[in-house]
Amino acid sequence: NHRVDARSLWLYRWYYSSTSQWILSFTTFLILALAFIETPSSLTSTSDVRYRPAPWEPPCGLTEGVEALCLLVFAADVSVKSYLVGWAQFRKNPWLLAYLVVLLVSLLDWTVSLSLICQEPVRVRRLLRPFFLMQSSSMMKKTLKCIRWSLPEMASVGLLLAAHLGLFTVLAMLLLPCEKRCHVRSQDDRRDRQRLTYFRNLPEALTSLLVLLTTANSPDVMIPAYSKNRLYAIFFIAFTLIGSLFLMNLLTAVIYNQFRGYLMKSLQTSLLRRCLGIRAAYKVLSSMTAEGEAHPEGVGVKPQDFLQVLQKVQLDRDHKQAIAEKLRSRSGDLLSADKFQKLFDEFDRRVIKEHPPRPEYQSPFLQSAQFLFGHHYFDYLGNLMALGNLVTICVFLVLDADVLPEDRDDFVLGILNCVFILYYLLEMLLKVFALGLRRYLVSSSNVFDGLLTAVLLVLEISTLAVHRFPHPGWKPEALGLLSLWDMTRLVNVFIAFRFLRIIPSMELMAVVASTILDLIKNMRAFGGILVGVYYIFAIIGIILFRGVIVPPGNSSLAPDNGSAPCGSFEQLEYWTNNFDDFAAALVTLWDVMVVNNWQVFLDAFRRYAGPWSKIYFVLWWLVSSVIWVNLLLALILENFLHKWDRRSHLQSLTGDLEATSE
Amino acid sequence: NHRVDARSLWLYRWYYSSTSQWILSFTTFLILALAFIETPSSLTSTSDVRYRPAPWEPPCGLTEGVEALCLLVFAADVSVKSYLVGWAQFRKNPWLLAYLVVLLVSLLDWTVSLSLICQEPVRVRRLLRPFFLMQSSSMMKKTLKCIRWSLPEMASVGLLLAAHLGLFTVLAMLLLPCEKRCHVRSQDDRRDRQRLTYFRNLPEALTSLLVLLTTANSPDVMIPAYSKNRLYAIFFIAFTLIGSLFLMNLLTAVIYNQFRGYLMKSLQTSLLRRCLGIRAAYKVLSSMTAEGEAHPEGVGVKPQDFLQVLQKVQLDRDHKQAIAEKLRSRSGDLLSADKFQKLFDEFDRRVIKEHPPRPEYQSPFLQSAQFLFGHHYFDYLGNLMALGNLVTICVFLVLDADVLPEDRDDFVLGILNCVFILYYLLEMLLKVFALGLRRYLVSSSNVFDGLLTAVLLVLEISTLAVHRFPHPGWKPEALGLLSLWDMTRLVNVFIAFRFLRIIPSMELMAVVASTILDLIKNMRAFGGILVGVYYIFAIIGIILFRGVIVPPGNSSLAPDNGSAPCGSFEQLEYWTNNFDDFAAALVTLWDVMVVNNWQVFLDAFRRYAGPWSKIYFVLWWLVSSVIWVNLLLALILENFLHKWDRRSHLQSLTGDLEATSE
Repeated sequence: NHRVDARSLWLYRWYYSSTSQWILSFTTFLILALAFIETPSSLTSTSDVRYRPAPWEPPCGLTEGVEALCLLVFAADVSVKSYLVGWAQFRKNPWLLAYLVVLLVSLLDWTVSLSLICQEPVRVRRLLRPFFLMQSSSMMKKTLKCIRWSLPEMASVGLLLAAHLGLFTVLAMLLLPCEKRCHVRSQDDRRDRQRLTYFRNLPEALTSLLVLLTTANSPDVMIPAYSKNRLYAIFFIAFTLIGSLFLMNLLTAVIYNQFRGYLMKSLQTSLLRRCLGIRAAYKVLSSMTAEGEAHPEGVGVKPQDFLQVLQKVQLDRDHKQAIAEKLRSRSGDLLSADKFQKLFDEFDRRVIKEHPPRPEYQSPFLQSAQFLFGHHYFDYLGNLMALGNLVTICVFLVLDADVLPEDRDDFVLGILNCVFILYYLLEMLLKVFALGLRRYLVSSSNVFDGLLTAVLLVLEISTLAVHRFPHPGWKPEALGLLSLWDMTRLVNVFIAFRFLRIIPSMELMAVVASTILDLIKNMRAFGGILVGVYYIFAIIGIILFRGVIVPPGNSSLAPDNGSAPCGSFEQLEYWTNNFDDFAAALVTLWDVMVVNNWQVFLDAFRRYAGPWSKIYFVLWWLVSSVIWVNLLLALILENFLHKWDRRSHLQSLTGDLEATSE
Repeated sequence: NHRVDARSLWLYRWYYSSTSQWILSFTTFLILALAFIETPSSLTSTSDVRYRPAPWEPPCGLTEGVEALCLLVFAADVSVKSYLVGWAQFRKNPWLLAYLVVLLVSLLDWTVSLSLICQEPVRVRRLLRPFFLMQSSSMMKKTLKCIRWSLPEMASVGLLLAAHLGLFTVLAMLLLPCEKRCHVRSQDDRRDRQRLTYFRNLPEALTSLLVLLTTANSPDVMIPAYSKNRLYAIFFIAFTLIGSLFLMNLLTAVIYNQFRGYLMKSLQTSLLRRCLGIRAAYKVLSSMTAEGEAHPEGVGVKPQDFLQVLQKVQLDRDHKQAIAEKLRSRSGDLLSADKFQKLFDEFDRRVIKEHPPRPEYQSPFLQSAQFLFGHHYFDYLGNLMALGNLVTICVFLVLDADVLPEDRDDFVLGILNCVFILYYLLEMLLKVFALGLRRYLVSSSNVFDGLLTAVLLVLEISTLAVHRFPHPGWKPEALGLLSLWDMTRLVNVFIAFRFLRIIPSMELMAVVASTILDLIKNMRAFGGILVGVYYIFAIIGIILFRGVIVPPGNSSLAPDNGSAPCGSFEQLEYWTNNFDDFAAALVTLWDVMVVNNWQVFLDAFRRYAGPWSKIYFVLWWLVSSVIWVNLLLALILENFLHKWDRRSHLQSLTGDLEATSE
């Protein structure tokens, strides 16, 4: 029950054209990227509170102007969408309704922001921006639904985890030796006091065990008690075994259980939709035929009509050609529904592209040279040279490690580098000669090689121009972040990617590697959700914790570096991990997501920002590390098993074929 | 083609009787447990090298004597087994052959050991002991086979991981700022030098990134470069994302793929074996019938014969009764093969035990009291009281946290404890009164409650006897590790286990909890492999690293505590984590398996025992953390999905039944 009149159809076509979809994606990207430039702008070279210069402040109205443009585009988007689906559908679609609401709130907030000349304390609309990303992909909506479905089960495992944590906390308070936790002995020195606070009171014990659940303070928390008596180790081992090994993995199982068949289902849905679409197209076309002339042979589609339609439809060029050819090879009869459907099976076949022919040379010398350099052994020789290049770089890295940079002599390496680059150039030219330019450019690996060689050549020539030709005692100076010379070596390292081409030739590696490639395709939905979650948490973090981390010496709270106890935020010099701008907040969130040493953040923000900051970090841990990482694992499992099953299915099919042919 | 003569059958029966199997298990346990007592004996209260007293040395001949007994039992075992399977089978069975070899080597080593009066440097037989555990369970052998099958795939992922690691190491050497890694500036202070050695030369960079792969040095390794420029964070994030999130999870997928259907297969195999066994029994019995008398009605089994056999077979009593009853309910005809088979379906049904009747009281008052205390609301009241008990303990723990132990007043808590214990006693008596003693004892949760109450009562009475009745200012003294008073509170905490009974009443929780219970049953094979691997690595660790960790002050290698740099073995006081005896080695291995802070061990053992110790720890990390933890995850996934599918299958069945009944 979408609109189907001519104007609506034109609008449909225009709306789903690649241009307007691309504009939408770009707008979404733009509005999300604004966060890097907006008032706590991330345009400083470092986020370290000790060395950070004052960041650039965008003038009021710049980001707001860009934002207004984006919001206008979204307004157009939502109006076109709601017009196309019609009012009845619109009311029932929660995503569209939410879209409208988010847009209105954003516009309102934007007006408030401008009327206060960008001095408002909190921008609500920044929190709402990830919504634009979420609503743009149906896959993301589906994934969100999947997550919502698995919440009850996750909650039940979470309840078990909480019970486990609570029980062990009380046990720890009763079991662990009193001298180690009950009270701070006055005769103890400061360092000792610092270390023995894991179980001093109930909230601290709870935090310690929560962190132990992520194994982030694993042996440390055990040491004081364990060094008193061996048997205390059993307590901690039991806690980790039950908590992180059993219950956490059970959580993974619960999430995977919900996502099992997720990929299959979405594949089936898209197949079903295609079938329905083809069926509908058949009906329309056959009714047109029936209208035009009363045909004697019942209903059907005239191939000419179909060909006409095919020209207008946006499809892959190769597939279009294949279908058209198949159509022409048939007789001019009407197409029945089945045959119509079968034409589209071409989509599932991979179109095998024909290679352009090799150039043909007359002279026998040139022919044998062509055979020689076109052979795949020549590729192997190239790979060998690349390996040699890599090895020389490594060898020189090892040799140079103990030499002061002032005393280094890059003469030999410079000469070797020239030789390798000349070889790569020669290889490229010979391959172009043997295969012909067109055939050379068809293979993407050749294009990659050629590109690398060109970049290397440019870099090497500019290095030589700046630093003259290598001579004993030659040493290019570093200019800026990376010297030209370093850059050349860096590009040389990319030569290592040539080896990735060997992977598909080993069968098992091929399955594994192709899983990763497939994964990246299927990752977009999950990546989008991750981006959204990061965005929201980073903005909340900026609102809550902006400026709470103060450089040492400026505050009475922060002890200066020398006296900071081991393992604290100050001693580890985590000054770069703060929430003072968007980019720094992202990296801080990443560090907490990786979970290792996150107790340092818990402790530091407790001291700088108050005890309630704990909730923020624990929540982020739950969302990112517990839910999202398990989601990723589920996705990888799903992809790999799907791939594996299809592979073994194909193998058994070929096995059957061979058996029958015997 | 096993032997089937009468003597062999008697031997079979005797060998597979529960007594001799129990003796075998006990012997295996004994020989494994010897490691705790043998020469580097673990019988000290702590393994801290600073405070450890000289351990007790077993006199030469004690452990050797026990070991000789165990080896004799194993020799008997292998001879009976090989006699029963026959020579032809024996030669083909690699496990039996290996058993014999291991036994011979052990005996040889034992003789050498005795002839050197227990002063030999290395005991090879200790390394071979886990074999006795492995060969005892067919499940473990199967699991080992599964692991061997998945090795090629794991190797391919491992190769990808190695390539990833190598590439990023070279990139790190080229990319990271030179000041931070190239050379140690002389004007830097010592602490600074300590922190900037992550990427000083190629081997160190490789180690740093290997540790980063396990995220054990996650933000620290990034900080020096990141605090110089934001963009360096991208390098580390990319490394972690590809390495730990993608490739490591892919490894999990590979292992899970191999274990998928593992549970189903083993279930099917055991069912198949039962079917075969029943079939064989039928054949034997029917041939006996045919021999005895020429029966007119073809072949079959006489029920009387079957009943006679049934009496002799070792089976669960309940199942036996069920089968016998079913048999008697039939007419006296011969049993056909199908009917014979069907009799054994009784095994799959759960026998519902009948509850013993409640006692019947005459007086209406007693009857209403019985109704009252037998109702399940009374159970809820008991749970509520237990909750109250737990809450009081927690409240007092929080209140007492800031009070010095000398000033504490346990008067209120003492009174409250008495009240709760009296309540539990009353509850137990009332329940016995309402349900009758026999019915009370049938339910295991009641038995658990009763036992706890009894223990509590004993502890409380002895506390009162020692410390007198609570009065203001009452404070029981600690005697030994735990005071009686602490013990009472501890047992009170076990009251919390009463709440576990609520779990099965929530549906999702029930699935999750029953998965854990099932898991523990299926865990034996995996647990056995873990024990074996731990055993072997601990023994190797003792051989390699015994005594290399020396207490501070005794050695020029170890800086004393105050000057040790932050994050080092000495500053963290990991003195208890050494390989000086078996128990300490186990805990050290556990700490490395949990992976957090394992770089500390790598560094410390590099300094104390030489750079080659790294290989041992990396190998242990691969075996335990990478392979075994993933194996565990695969097992949990398998169990949960199996359970879930069966549950939803049952649900759909009941759904269908309801639909048809409507």
